[in-house]
Amino acid sequence: MMNKINRVAIVGGTHGNEFTGAYLIQKFAQFPKLITRPSFETVTLLANPKAFAAGRRYIDQDLNRCFLQQKLQDPTLGSYEELRAKSIQNMLLSNRDKQVDFILDLHSTTSNMGLTIILVNSHPFNLKLAAYLSHVNPLVKIYRCSFSSVVENPFLNSLCELGFAIEVGPIAQGILKADLFQQTEELVHQVLDYLERFNEGKILSTGETLSVYHHLSSIDYPKQEDGSILGMIHPQLQDRDYEPLSPGEPMFLTFEGKTLVYEGKSTVWPIFINEAAYYEKLIAMCLTQKQQINL
Amino acid sequence: MMNKINRVAIVGGTHGNEFTGAYLIQKFAQFPKLITRPSFETVTLLANPKAFAAGRRYIDQDLNRCFLQQKLQDPTLGSYEELRAKSIQNMLLSNRDKQVDFILDLHSTTSNMGLTIILVNSHPFNLKLAAYLSHVNPLVKIYRCSFSSVVENPFLNSLCELGFAIEVGPIAQGILKADLFQQTEELVHQVLDYLERFNEGKILSTGETLSVYHHLSSIDYPKQEDGSILGMIHPQLQDRDYEPLSPGEPMFLTFEGKTLVYEGKSTVWPIFINEAAYYEKLIAMCLTQKQQINL
Repeated sequence: MMNKINRVAIVGGTHGNEFTGAYLIQKFAQFPKLITRPSFETVTLLANPKAFAAGRRYIDQDLNRCFLQQKLQDPTLGSYEELRAKSIQNMLLSNRDKQVDFILDLHSTTSNMGLTIILVNSHPFNLKLAAYLSHVNPLVKIYRCSFSSVVENPFLNSLCELGFAIEVGPIAQGILKADLFQQTEELVHQVLDYLERFNEGKILSTGETLSVYHHLSSIDYPKQEDGSILGMIHPQLQDRDYEPLSPGEPMFLTFEGKTLVYEGKSTVWPIFINEAAYYEKLIAMCLTQKQQINL
Repeated sequence: MMNKINRVAIVGGTHGNEFTGAYLIQKFAQFPKLITRPSFETVTLLANPKAFAAGRRYIDQDLNRCFLQQKLQDPTLGSYEELRAKSIQNMLLSNRDKQVDFILDLHSTTSNMGLTIILVNSHPFNLKLAAYLSHVNPLVKIYRCSFSSVVENPFLNSLCELGFAIEVGPIAQGILKADLFQQTEELVHQVLDYLERFNEGKILSTGETLSVYHHLSSIDYPKQEDGSILGMIHPQLQDRDYEPLSPGEPMFLTFEGKTLVYEGKSTVWPIFINEAAYYEKLIAMCLTQKQQINL
């Protein structure tokens, strides 16, 4: 663990139709004083400008699945997003004097996820910062991805041990909502202020027990044999991200009006319920296990 | 005015990422008895299958702006949607024995529009049907577009004097919401049942005064000189479609936090507030005038 954060990257528009982060980046680029702190430098990056201009998640493939080390080192890969991932790695890491120590990647979701911090590792620094944020802001939830090592992590955040993605919702793709824009901006400031206090040696332990939602599995929509979906998220489950779901409770409603229940053996906490971009990934929701961690 | 409706077309997926209509069409195609009525034939049409498969509004251009008579007759136009528009005209109108008398085109919106009927003309039959639907269902609102003649109407509904589009929301692009799916399906059944009673000569006057929201103008987002937006729908206006907006009331919030107010001279009723697909059309909302019509 380093003693000081020297350089922070705030990234938006990794998915081109997630406007909250993309426009926040543009605001920060226009008014850099907002993200300036005395003890470190902050840079902004609009990660997928071509997809943002097109108002689409991506041009050729999901940029936030292009950061596997193996892919970044493969010279034969040449889709727009594969090239862009290499270019981003180069921008953020190549120059030893300008290497970033912390990456904040701003996303949005159609799911009712509030302000979710997506941890791709369990670095104590990230956990402490996440604990602090959830302590000062009740909208903040903490989701821990399933990747067991950096090597298998394809997210942009894999470029750097410190930092995480922020996933805000619910919001449709391709729009801005002022309240969510302001909440996200406030969260960015809370992160930067925390990093500043860390550099000043002024971090106080929050002494908190932290609730973390650990990824268990993902669930696909009910499907016909030809692969087309035959049902929707059940109205009783829609918008209930982070709430407990017990065996036997409604999960899907088929187009014919039949209720399909959750058939697992124990209570789970679903998130990413009805995320638009996950239909093509065969994910209707992710199931998590709520756990208390003592820091 | 004809004495009998012989053939009805229910259209969905005119915009490929508006899933409610597209999946309703698939359900009706799979279970045709649902839309069968004794006195007329009902056909379904997935209008833009290529855009639906891609999960995008359109491939080359907005299909629902390709139905100007002048464009349909121009043999030099050849984008995917221009060709598709000609093909749809051919499917629905070319065979004199199989010509449709009524078109219902199913759309969805990220705006809080409830179940909106979009009238592209003021045909008494359409007005009476709209009055009936708003009478039996309080979620139904009636919006009258600005086109003064069929000739300037580029919508799919311009193919047929009778019928209208249904615009349901709020819902993100690329997802299904069970409650809105069911409400839309119920509205389709109410339309078909009304047409059946019309053919049976059993339409009773509702004797109602009808509220119609007449299009006045559209308002763009506040912009910088380079054309990029510099603000969002004001939180106090978000989701307040069909509610009155008076001069001096908040309309936009700039990224810098400044409130911009409505500067018109009289009260208006905004709709299509923050519709995702209208950012590129330079429309932040449409302003309407609420009017009472006696049928």
